[in-house]
Amino acid sequence: MTDKTSECLECWNDGPAKSAIVDFVERVTREGSADYVAPDERIAVFDNDGTLWCEYPMQVQVFFALAQVRRLAEQDPALLEKPAFKAMLDGDLKTLASLPKKEVFEPAFATHAGMTVDEFRQTAAQWLDEARHPSLDYLFVQGAYLPQCELLTYLRVHGFKTYIVTGGGVEFVRAVAQELYDIPPEQVIGSSTRMKVETVDGHPVLRKLPELGSFDDREEKVVNIALHIGRRPIFAFGNSDGDLAMLRYTLAGAGPRMAWYLHHDDADREFAYDRDFKLSALIEGLDNAAEYGIGIVSMKNDWKQVFAD
Amino acid sequence: MTDKTSECLECWNDGPAKSAIVDFVERVTREGSADYVAPDERIAVFDNDGTLWCEYPMQVQVFFALAQVRRLAEQDPALLEKPAFKAMLDGDLKTLASLPKKEVFEPAFATHAGMTVDEFRQTAAQWLDEARHPSLDYLFVQGAYLPQCELLTYLRVHGFKTYIVTGGGVEFVRAVAQELYDIPPEQVIGSSTRMKVETVDGHPVLRKLPELGSFDDREEKVVNIALHIGRRPIFAFGNSDGDLAMLRYTLAGAGPRMAWYLHHDDADREFAYDRDFKLSALIEGLDNAAEYGIGIVSMKNDWKQVFAD
Repeated sequence: MTDKTSECLECWNDGPAKSAIVDFVERVTREGSADYVAPDERIAVFDNDGTLWCEYPMQVQVFFALAQVRRLAEQDPALLEKPAFKAMLDGDLKTLASLPKKEVFEPAFATHAGMTVDEFRQTAAQWLDEARHPSLDYLFVQGAYLPQCELLTYLRVHGFKTYIVTGGGVEFVRAVAQELYDIPPEQVIGSSTRMKVETVDGHPVLRKLPELGSFDDREEKVVNIALHIGRRPIFAFGNSDGDLAMLRYTLAGAGPRMAWYLHHDDADREFAYDRDFKLSALIEGLDNAAEYGIGIVSMKNDWKQVFAD
Repeated sequence: MTDKTSECLECWNDGPAKSAIVDFVERVTREGSADYVAPDERIAVFDNDGTLWCEYPMQVQVFFALAQVRRLAEQDPALLEKPAFKAMLDGDLKTLASLPKKEVFEPAFATHAGMTVDEFRQTAAQWLDEARHPSLDYLFVQGAYLPQCELLTYLRVHGFKTYIVTGGGVEFVRAVAQELYDIPPEQVIGSSTRMKVETVDGHPVLRKLPELGSFDDREEKVVNIALHIGRRPIFAFGNSDGDLAMLRYTLAGAGPRMAWYLHHDDADREFAYDRDFKLSALIEGLDNAAEYGIGIVSMKNDWKQVFAD
């Protein structure tokens, strides 16, 4: 293992996961190796919620939506008829967690309908500057996993282009991706509302509409990878039901490939959850990981440290 | 003018267009300049048909669709009921040109429904290897404008990220963009069909559906730039009705910006057309270029050479 490697991945414990990652990256980057992959084709995709930052008890964007709903409910009481909104205002995370993810996200997107894209990103960035996790003692933006930030850097140092492919709103994640992960807006793929161009004072302005454009989850992640990247990734990292299709798509191409599930098994430093978290395809993924060729990273065993100090 | 510049833009005649481009690029790249733009924000977007390669008498993809239709018409005679298909098979370019662009593209996309994305790109690449322009003595892929290839290189040498934003099918243009323009698939934004993920022999496969996903033209180009890039470009180049919204959106941001129309006024070396080519917003653009702040590049006067030898 080179010095560069150990510097990059110092929050990873030595073990099978770290060894496999380092071995893979060395094989695909060593010219003359049978597994050599040209830099242009070194595409790595990462889910965000639960893979790059904490998503427990709910995705960060749900808390953002809650803040927006509180602001909007006074203006439009009809919003309270939507189960997801009512549950948010009641602080009823149990009901929220029981709703289909799409039902939670779709009305959440509606809270920023009518904003211009620029206004929305500003609103999200301001909220993220101050918003705190409900039980852990940190700002949400401090919930980024340090070993994953290292892994992103490690891959980029070795010529990979790193993408986020998230079920979260693309503009919401773009508001933090550069700062947290050093990933530019054009390398964030996510759920989106429809938009329209309006002319205001003679100038075109881009406004968000209250309709879902793409819900970037499950098979839709594969479709959006094809649409936005146009190449099949060779490395993928996820943690849930929404990521299985993307992981399997990554593994289904020719040549060397690698895909990982992050296993949240660390009740002391983060949370321990999986089979009790209504994620059927996570169970499918965990149960069939070996058959599918998906590796499991254990937060508890493979990571020396979870969050930055 | 530096040696590097003159090497890069040697097919451009000295004149107001070349001077303005060189001046702009020098201002946004000179650190300490009031107009300095950080490399990350140096996003340049180019239309493809009629801006980077020849689109007369019809877009290259229409000829590709024609070849596909010929192949498919025997299998499915019902296709002939669509006016665009009938006109294609009859070689009736006049009727084709009279149909709305969307009506020409939409059935064209249908010809590759059912193919996997990989199969489609292979089919397009094979066709492009041999297909010839109907009146000019070259392969379609030789219809790329040499001065524009130089301009793309010139911008990249100065830290710009260059994108194609085309009404053409994204997979079709990706099949040639790397070779012709040195633009990777992830920097090609275009029209697209919907897709679905199927499981074949236990592996996920991405297949094209006969439904239009996005018709990347006019205001939709702006929406797709926001969706795919997430930043407002500072430099844009187009040539037709479909580009006006993108050019005006580019110019509407803060800081230094530049947008160009390519004027096809060179009957000797290419074609002379505009006001007679059913492109109302081209007329709007040309008539209001000065007011909108859009510059005009004259193929006849500003380019020393149009195509590679």
